[in-house]
Amino acid sequence: MIPNTYRRVVLARRPPGEPKEDDFRVEQQAVPEPAGQEVLVRAIYLSLDPYMRGRMRDVASYAPPVAIGEVMPGGIVGEVVKSGLPGFKPGDIVEERLGWQEYAISNGAQLRKIDPGLAPISTANGILGMTGLTAYYGLFEIAQPKAGETVVVSAASGAVGQVVGQLAKISGCRVVGIAGGAKKCAFVTDELGFDACVDYKASSDIDPALKAACPNGVDVYFDNVGGAITDAVLRNLNFFARVALCGSISQYNAAASESGPRLLGPFVGRRIRMQGFIVSDYLPRSAAAFRQMGEWVRSGRLKYREDIVDGLENAPRAFIGMLRGENFGKMQVRVGADPWLKP
Amino acid sequence: MIPNTYRRVVLARRPPGEPKEDDFRVEQQAVPEPAGQEVLVRAIYLSLDPYMRGRMRDVASYAPPVAIGEVMPGGIVGEVVKSGLPGFKPGDIVEERLGWQEYAISNGAQLRKIDPGLAPISTANGILGMTGLTAYYGLFEIAQPKAGETVVVSAASGAVGQVVGQLAKISGCRVVGIAGGAKKCAFVTDELGFDACVDYKASSDIDPALKAACPNGVDVYFDNVGGAITDAVLRNLNFFARVALCGSISQYNAAASESGPRLLGPFVGRRIRMQGFIVSDYLPRSAAAFRQMGEWVRSGRLKYREDIVDGLENAPRAFIGMLRGENFGKMQVRVGADPWLKP
Repeated sequence: MIPNTYRRVVLARRPPGEPKEDDFRVEQQAVPEPAGQEVLVRAIYLSLDPYMRGRMRDVASYAPPVAIGEVMPGGIVGEVVKSGLPGFKPGDIVEERLGWQEYAISNGAQLRKIDPGLAPISTANGILGMTGLTAYYGLFEIAQPKAGETVVVSAASGAVGQVVGQLAKISGCRVVGIAGGAKKCAFVTDELGFDACVDYKASSDIDPALKAACPNGVDVYFDNVGGAITDAVLRNLNFFARVALCGSISQYNAAASESGPRLLGPFVGRRIRMQGFIVSDYLPRSAAAFRQMGEWVRSGRLKYREDIVDGLENAPRAFIGMLRGENFGKMQVRVGADPWLKP
Repeated sequence: MIPNTYRRVVLARRPPGEPKEDDFRVEQQAVPEPAGQEVLVRAIYLSLDPYMRGRMRDVASYAPPVAIGEVMPGGIVGEVVKSGLPGFKPGDIVEERLGWQEYAISNGAQLRKIDPGLAPISTANGILGMTGLTAYYGLFEIAQPKAGETVVVSAASGAVGQVVGQLAKISGCRVVGIAGGAKKCAFVTDELGFDACVDYKASSDIDPALKAACPNGVDVYFDNVGGAITDAVLRNLNFFARVALCGSISQYNAAASESGPRLLGPFVGRRIRMQGFIVSDYLPRSAAAFRQMGEWVRSGRLKYREDIVDGLENAPRAFIGMLRGENFGKMQVRVGADPWLKP
């Protein structure tokens, strides 16, 4: 039963610092009719990701900013409910960046069909979706860890960090996470199998804990956070270390550029390589990564943790909390019923 | 006529900040006798280079620090005066890192024979020596400029910078130097053929001048200076820009790590790659670079400027001045008579 109307979340205004709930607006819309070779998708899971904060700024980046009044961007796992597109039929589970809304039209160009028998369908927003792909290519292509090396990953229990660390373990590395709080750290070591985890909330200076966890220094740093945590890791980099710059969530709400210590000097003698990357550059190679990670997920070698809240109206609050580090695992919003969810 | 004694400069104490002349000590020594397959070299040109400041610190880096009382390290172009080493005879011009001294023994392992007919022998300390090699591999291997791109190089009239910019011009790039003062900038554009030069002494904020000189942004930054100049360039990097970290002379005299703006955030979306390097990693491939650059020097396609002072006793003062940017071109000390110098 397709309703007459659906809800969507648009950007109401641009927050200068930390977003507030009324920077977003929930709107009611008439459910559209797919035309020609289009499909109508009923959203089930909405992915919430730190990159969205960047789109809220009126600054040119790798993607254009969201306009005021425009639907917030975001990945959706949903169900085809109407289809004029060959190859897609009602009931098919699909994934696409369709935005923060309960229904959406797709022309199919970016639509990915998901096999709901392989893993919970929400994973198509996470470990078997963009965040998993980010971890996979960021680690293997940018950071290039070698067996025996020490790999440090920040936001270690987060959507990307949890995958990075497990992939590095599979690669034979010593893996050290950085996460906020004893509960997240215990998850990272006890559930995910990292060798150690540094709790950045336990001390204002993580350097001693980091040094203790990395007795041979740091060969690879997969950075999701930036700021003071990253400073501490950069000070402990080994000769020929590689830094994969994936995100800097600690800086996203800053109204102006923060100051920090100048740390590039030693990069010369240590021949350190630091490189930013964006997952979309690797989309043409996503099938290989999903096939490999899908095998590891099914065999239990790769674990994942999701943090799911219910109801589109709760997306702004969940998003704001994620920017504060309040989520525990891949943040998602269950926007509609999941027919594949096991009770 | 070989004298009985010679002079050498040793490190007298470790300066916490800017070195002073009495951080060095000139000593008189008996000229040694080469034993077995060794040569005795009479120094003619001593190369002064920013990396030496790093060796004066008691900090582990890619090379061990100079001990107190030990001869300062440095490249020497000199003349063989005694030889028990097959292939080397008195009168041969050679190059090796033999230190701040008028005579030195070499076992030949690192000794490079120089053809004095090809170019002034001092160039074996500069454009056809370590600094030329630094420019060549730093630019081509680390920064990888493509024709049509904009290349910015700091310390543009310096030993490495002047070569980097000319090599980038040969590669078909738009080349913008950064140098201190109108005289250096005029040299960089008028003599070396850079497209533009930003005078960092003309304003406390080089951003407007840099933007004007780089209307299409910056694709490659070859960094010799670090600090605020580098901050300004990093803010103007294009998508997929590359930064070759060669040195950070602005920071070498700092007693403690300075602060500066956090600029890594935009590296993610812009997929910027930043990499430190050391010329010694490329020594096994030096012959190819010297052959190519030697051709360009002889044909006049590559120009160079040296700043030569006379007398070993003036090496400390010249070195201190170089760290302040007072030199104009590749800094060298003429330690002894150059038999190949044209009057």
